[in-house]
Amino acid sequence: MIELPEVIKNAVTALTHLPGVGEKTAFRMVMSMTNWKPVELESVGQALADLQNLQTCEDCGMFSDGKYCSICADHSRQSNHSLCVVENASDLMAIEKSGHFRGVYHILGGVLNPLLGVGPDELRMDELKDRIASKEIEEVILAINPSVEGDATCSYFKTLLPETVRVERIGFGVPIGGSLEYLDPMTITKALENRKKF
Amino acid sequence: MIELPEVIKNAVTALTHLPGVGEKTAFRMVMSMTNWKPVELESVGQALADLQNLQTCEDCGMFSDGKYCSICADHSRQSNHSLCVVENASDLMAIEKSGHFRGVYHILGGVLNPLLGVGPDELRMDELKDRIASKEIEEVILAINPSVEGDATCSYFKTLLPETVRVERIGFGVPIGGSLEYLDPMTITKALENRKKF
Repeated sequence: MIELPEVIKNAVTALTHLPGVGEKTAFRMVMSMTNWKPVELESVGQALADLQNLQTCEDCGMFSDGKYCSICADHSRQSNHSLCVVENASDLMAIEKSGHFRGVYHILGGVLNPLLGVGPDELRMDELKDRIASKEIEEVILAINPSVEGDATCSYFKTLLPETVRVERIGFGVPIGGSLEYLDPMTITKALENRKKF
Repeated sequence: MIELPEVIKNAVTALTHLPGVGEKTAFRMVMSMTNWKPVELESVGQALADLQNLQTCEDCGMFSDGKYCSICADHSRQSNHSLCVVENASDLMAIEKSGHFRGVYHILGGVLNPLLGVGPDELRMDELKDRIASKEIEEVILAINPSVEGDATCSYFKTLLPETVRVERIGFGVPIGGSLEYLDPMTITKALENRKKF
């Protein structure tokens, strides 16, 4: 086999760290990049390296261009007194896309997972407690994904919050467009438990 | 919708230029990169930007760490007097992987394509002519992919070379492991044309 130059090998290795990119895909990417102009290569390299300068909102932990993200800087949303706790930025954006929630968010940064060494100190729990104490939050919506770790996180969470705050968890059941035929037993159990007067 | 920071948007745009990466995939990649350490981001950025320093072999045009690639620097391969013409580096590597060819290569950099403005001047044709004239090349194997443009390139090519050089094109037919049932009519026509005494 022909020995490839170090620059190519380095670029391939670097790209394999991306999710969903194996060695073959990375190699195909690098091969296509060998046809790029130097200025294009410089610019993609710079754009990725620049991610280290990414700022996060001091309140909710979302990516932001300044001290606060556009949601936390919006007074109409602050005055809603409703706070939605999510695991990460992608979950926040998914909820925001629905356009239904008009309060503010708080990004935990994950869920409790003792096996992976994620305890309360690794999550943004203290910031949340401080936030709820200092701002007039009346309602906390736990938009934590349903999993053993997610459930445990929600339970732990409940013990932290003052009695005065209403704590709710998002509803679980059959997704819209879903079909009972193809759903797992756990989801159907949840859907039956969460039935509502019609 | 929440307005995302410029750094994220730039990184997403940069990654969408990679083959097979759309906006959703790029976004997923960037989201995962937001969890990387600064030094990791710096290193992937550097590795990609470094591709602009990629050197090519003065003889064959393959990527190389120095003036000549490892194949052209190998005297046993030079003395084989056989030269294989390929479209690009990936094709070269595919042939090299088979381990069957022991001569040297020449990368054309594409095929003639008047519609896309690719004429003989855009390809490494003159370099090839010079190479065949100066080195003792006895046999030229055209490992150009079968397509209208590839066929035209091979025909044009033949007119350029001196009569003394034996010019051959790689064989076309049923690939090993292939099944006649699923092959296209053109391949089967070629396979019938290229039949050999058994």
